[in-house]
Amino acid sequence: MGGTYTHRVDVRYLEVDRQGVVFNMWYLAYFDDALSGYLAAGGLAYADLMASGHDVMLVHTELDWTGGVGFGDDVAVEVTPQRVGETSFTLGFCVRRDGEVICRANTVYVVVAMDGSGKLPIPAQLRELLGAPA
Amino acid sequence: MGGTYTHRVDVRYLEVDRQGVVFNMWYLAYFDDALSGYLAAGGLAYADLMASGHDVMLVHTELDWTGGVGFGDDVAVEVTPQRVGETSFTLGFCVRRDGEVICRANTVYVVVAMDGSGKLPIPAQLRELLGAPA
Amino acid sequence: MGGTYTHRVDVRYLEVDRQGVVFNMWYLAYFDDALSGYLAAGGLAYADLMASGHDVMLVHTELDWTGGVGFGDDVAVEVTPQRVGETSFTLGFCVRRDGEVICRANTVYVVVAMDGSGKLPIPAQLRELLGAPA
Amino acid sequence: MGGTYTHRVDVRYLEVDRQGVVFNMWYLAYFDDALSGYLAAGGLAYADLMASGHDVMLVHTELDWTGGVGFGDDVAVEVTPQRVGETSFTLGFCVRRDGEVICRANTVYVVVAMDGSGKLPIPAQLRELLGAPA
Repeated sequence: MGGTYTHRVDVRYLEVDRQGVVFNMWYLAYFDDALSGYLAAGGLAYADLMASGHDVMLVHTELDWTGGVGFGDDVAVEVTPQRVGETSFTLGFCVRRDGEVICRANTVYVVVAMDGSGKLPIPAQLRELLGAPA
Repeated sequence: MGGTYTHRVDVRYLEVDRQGVVFNMWYLAYFDDALSGYLAAGGLAYADLMASGHDVMLVHTELDWTGGVGFGDDVAVEVTPQRVGETSFTLGFCVRRDGEVICRANTVYVVVAMDGSGKLPIPAQLRELLGAPA
Repeated sequence: MGGTYTHRVDVRYLEVDRQGVVFNMWYLAYFDDALSGYLAAGGLAYADLMASGHDVMLVHTELDWTGGVGFGDDVAVEVTPQRVGETSFTLGFCVRRDGEVICRANTVYVVVAMDGSGKLPIPAQLRELLGAPA
Repeated sequence: MGGTYTHRVDVRYLEVDRQGVVFNMWYLAYFDDALSGYLAAGGLAYADLMASGHDVMLVHTELDWTGGVGFGDDVAVEVTPQRVGETSFTLGFCVRRDGEVICRANTVYVVVAMDGSGKLPIPAQLRELLGAPA
């Protein structure tokens, strides 16, 4: 498997709810941003992936929270590949605030065609980035 | 356990992404709306719950998608209590488009004090609504 | 000009920020929802408008707030046509909480082709709905 | 008046709608982020402003679009103070994509007490940052 990539998060004021912490759904926005950052850091711009006719779609995600993050906090998301299949792969996400674990998540992505025709094999460049032999 | 409540969803144009389907994070918004609707239908306004010093916080959620929903689709979320503990409870969510299952999810909520002092026992009215003996 | 249409708003918990009121950007979401509701009430589904190759794009909007709305509040948006041109039209929005004016806004929309080829004349059915002679 | 501050924007995939451009409301999120960045660049963290019992609230905003921005675009927001009053101030925003103007906006902010007690004079440090004599 490939190594861990760390994505810095700037919490938006609007993402913080009445409880004073980021509302749960925004973690999925952070993970999507982190995915883009992870791909870009590996030389694979998400826009290029789309330009080549590929897109990724979530089929499963699970999140466990042990805390929350607030506006102005020092927040980072670690991205680590967990599994690489033929048309799908799993990424692990770990959200930390000042190093402390706040949320752990796993997400299963399926590679699909931009034209809506269905699943596609993971492109070679993405497969290599995920740390799996082509 | 208590029965199933059905919450109607009006998909927002802005929730639909380039893929033509609602972006994943908005499902968590739908579930939060459905939770409010579920409570209200049981005679327990979320605002009243908060007024009594209680709030709920997610500690775990998992979602499985088998499809997507688009703008203008007929979408509904079914809410079904799955488990009731001392300070936490689990709700099952099922998103349907024209009756077809699009997403299934389970979410574990913990009842916490609005003042940030930590967990609280599930209030009697909520416990009754969830179908568990007080 | 056409008459006023009233669109009911269910404030989402996640839209309310640390200040206890809906964060400003969500008003534009409400207006987009209200636009869809306004069109649908006039027998013109937004999805159908798009299916006919038309879409609308904002070129100008201005908002004035005299208050805020919170979770659980009784909120409605009134939509009133203000001006109808060849390819553009202006809608006025008024957000009320329990009848009291919270926000007034005006938005100028341009009708554009879904294929990105540019402006189009306002379709006859939309023009009629807006209260202008075809 | 104070000088111009430039805030870089990472467009989120989820902010792009069916039209292939960022949905209008997200510009207000960008402006709020840019405001925080503007304050921080001037040595005034928004969190500190809040800690001192101050917050800012929008009373007026107007936006003019001459284009749109997409995912992966090089986007920046320029922030320029326009006017400084006793309890309110106006910021001008200019969104550029690869240098080209996409949206211009003006927003009037009122300084209010975090405890909900109403308007407050602009704090000295903020006034100085905005380029007005204290």
